[in-house]
Amino acid sequence: MSTSVTVALDAMGGDNAPTVSVLGALAAAGPDLRVILVGDESRLISEIDASGGDATAIEILHAAECIGSDEEGARAVRAKPDSSVAVACRTVREGHAQAVMSAGHTGAMMAASILHIRRIRGVLRPGIAVVLPSARGRVVLIDSGANAEAKPEHLAQFAHMGRVFSRDILGVAEPSVGLLSIGEEAVRGSELVLEARTRLEGTPGFFGNVEGRDIPAGVVDVVVTDGFTGNVALKAMEGTAEMIFALIREAIGSSTMAKLGGLLARPALRKLRSRLDPDTFGGAYLLGVNGISVIGHGNSSAQAVTNALHLSARGVRLGLLDHLAAGMDTTSAPTPEGSRA
Amino acid sequence: MSTSVTVALDAMGGDNAPTVSVLGALAAAGPDLRVILVGDESRLISEIDASGGDATAIEILHAAECIGSDEEGARAVRAKPDSSVAVACRTVREGHAQAVMSAGHTGAMMAASILHIRRIRGVLRPGIAVVLPSARGRVVLIDSGANAEAKPEHLAQFAHMGRVFSRDILGVAEPSVGLLSIGEEAVRGSELVLEARTRLEGTPGFFGNVEGRDIPAGVVDVVVTDGFTGNVALKAMEGTAEMIFALIREAIGSSTMAKLGGLLARPALRKLRSRLDPDTFGGAYLLGVNGISVIGHGNSSAQAVTNALHLSARGVRLGLLDHLAAGMDTTSAPTPEGSRA
Repeated sequence: MSTSVTVALDAMGGDNAPTVSVLGALAAAGPDLRVILVGDESRLISEIDASGGDATAIEILHAAECIGSDEEGARAVRAKPDSSVAVACRTVREGHAQAVMSAGHTGAMMAASILHIRRIRGVLRPGIAVVLPSARGRVVLIDSGANAEAKPEHLAQFAHMGRVFSRDILGVAEPSVGLLSIGEEAVRGSELVLEARTRLEGTPGFFGNVEGRDIPAGVVDVVVTDGFTGNVALKAMEGTAEMIFALIREAIGSSTMAKLGGLLARPALRKLRSRLDPDTFGGAYLLGVNGISVIGHGNSSAQAVTNALHLSARGVRLGLLDHLAAGMDTTSAPTPEGSRA
Repeated sequence: MSTSVTVALDAMGGDNAPTVSVLGALAAAGPDLRVILVGDESRLISEIDASGGDATAIEILHAAECIGSDEEGARAVRAKPDSSVAVACRTVREGHAQAVMSAGHTGAMMAASILHIRRIRGVLRPGIAVVLPSARGRVVLIDSGANAEAKPEHLAQFAHMGRVFSRDILGVAEPSVGLLSIGEEAVRGSELVLEARTRLEGTPGFFGNVEGRDIPAGVVDVVVTDGFTGNVALKAMEGTAEMIFALIREAIGSSTMAKLGGLLARPALRKLRSRLDPDTFGGAYLLGVNGISVIGHGNSSAQAVTNALHLSARGVRLGLLDHLAAGMDTTSAPTPEGSRA
């Protein structure tokens, strides 16, 4: 039982909460993975009862409030210290859980993680690492939206954290790192990228600059960028995949012959669709806070919650935090304290 | 013959130049569209002879040099005043052509356009407008890579130019404009977007902020952003589409049944693929220079060159330049002169 991990789940977060939270937790929980469901106690109990599942490895921690999708994340977290996401993050801070997961409000989860779990010593800014499908397998994009503005030293830390993540979580032996940039078309280069490039040059695994096209092509294992560009790229790619699959359905429905063809090719296309589905991975890691913090899609299914809980536990078992901390230069960089990000 | 338009074509630009330039020009040229092929005279003559096409509406203008894809665009344009792209741009400046098109080095074409054609009075920075397929039809993305850094006033001008482009070239009666941003997840908002938002608020057609996902979804007709973000998004979307179609081919080849299905669905999927193919549109407009300037894909086919030549002529016939200039506030904004961009 020495490998048993406890994950706190913000059971009220997500479009289909708390039903999918409870179902996802029941499917994931067992002797090696204990889940603390954080939220409205009576609702959670009745959801568990309704499911008929085995709740032996599940604990319920009451949280009186929750944060709605229309609230401003950081403000709501401060205004609602008893919200499910804040309570869940505090269980990590207090040592009752080693990881926290929420499929709720991304901004609130980020703010609660930074405020309540705090940062790893030396980390200037936590960054969101997302795993995306690529032509060659998988690629990690960091930062995919934690910070709208970044400085070169932040990008250098993202590179380190993304590399540790790729090695620990995806099992890539020597992850290569690309700095997201544009071709030399632009009349002027972006100053951020030029300065970050100088810092990254010569660091372990640094490949050089990559372009937007290289993310889905899988040219490198880790793509580093500021959270604004990363978030736009991530969503543009997700949206493109959605558009294409919608248009394929339309095209296949356009003639009897195409319909028949679609029917025959359906199993193969379904498999492909699921490979490209973000839910298969379950969630994104907020790297740089002093505990494992995993953010799920708002529209997570029970399966996605299960996957994200396993993903959280994996980070704990593999010692991700220690590996992240080990590479932080706490001597030369300023080490801002506590909840200020 | 009053509607006859002359387009100068950088015949040496592009991976398959000058063969596809000549073939594309021969297919496009006619009484209403005269083409000046700019490049190595003897090579162009022999390509025309070899094609056996009718060169009545074609003129050849010799240019002794050309710019390679490995050169730094802006520097090469200054170092090689007799390069085909520079000579082609000067024909517009001197009034021999109303438009210029190149499928060569994007950076060189931009630099040559700004240096030799110069800017429309009042335009601070020209921007690249790209037309992308969307779930609802087409969407214009500006700036997709002309400037790596942008100021709020540049984004405001891109919004105006993108709107004129959408109306004139795509025939959208009242184009809606979205400012590309990220959700409110980020701990801090991007200053550029916050300031640009203030400037755009209340301007004609302004819809509000949009996210990366909204580009392929076609939520607005025009998406405005800085050239760094725009270029990354553009290439990430193109790369995603390429990856998905490659994976579909692979999936369809994975079983006999899927193969048969793919065969039956092929005509429908081909049609879709061509709808999503950037070559169908032919090129991107560099908006803001004082002449029509169209940039083609480096790997343009002859058909893409033909399309881009028609696209260039269309801008001239529809009076795009006058419409762009009419909306420029030349009183309040500083009006930098000449070739400085």
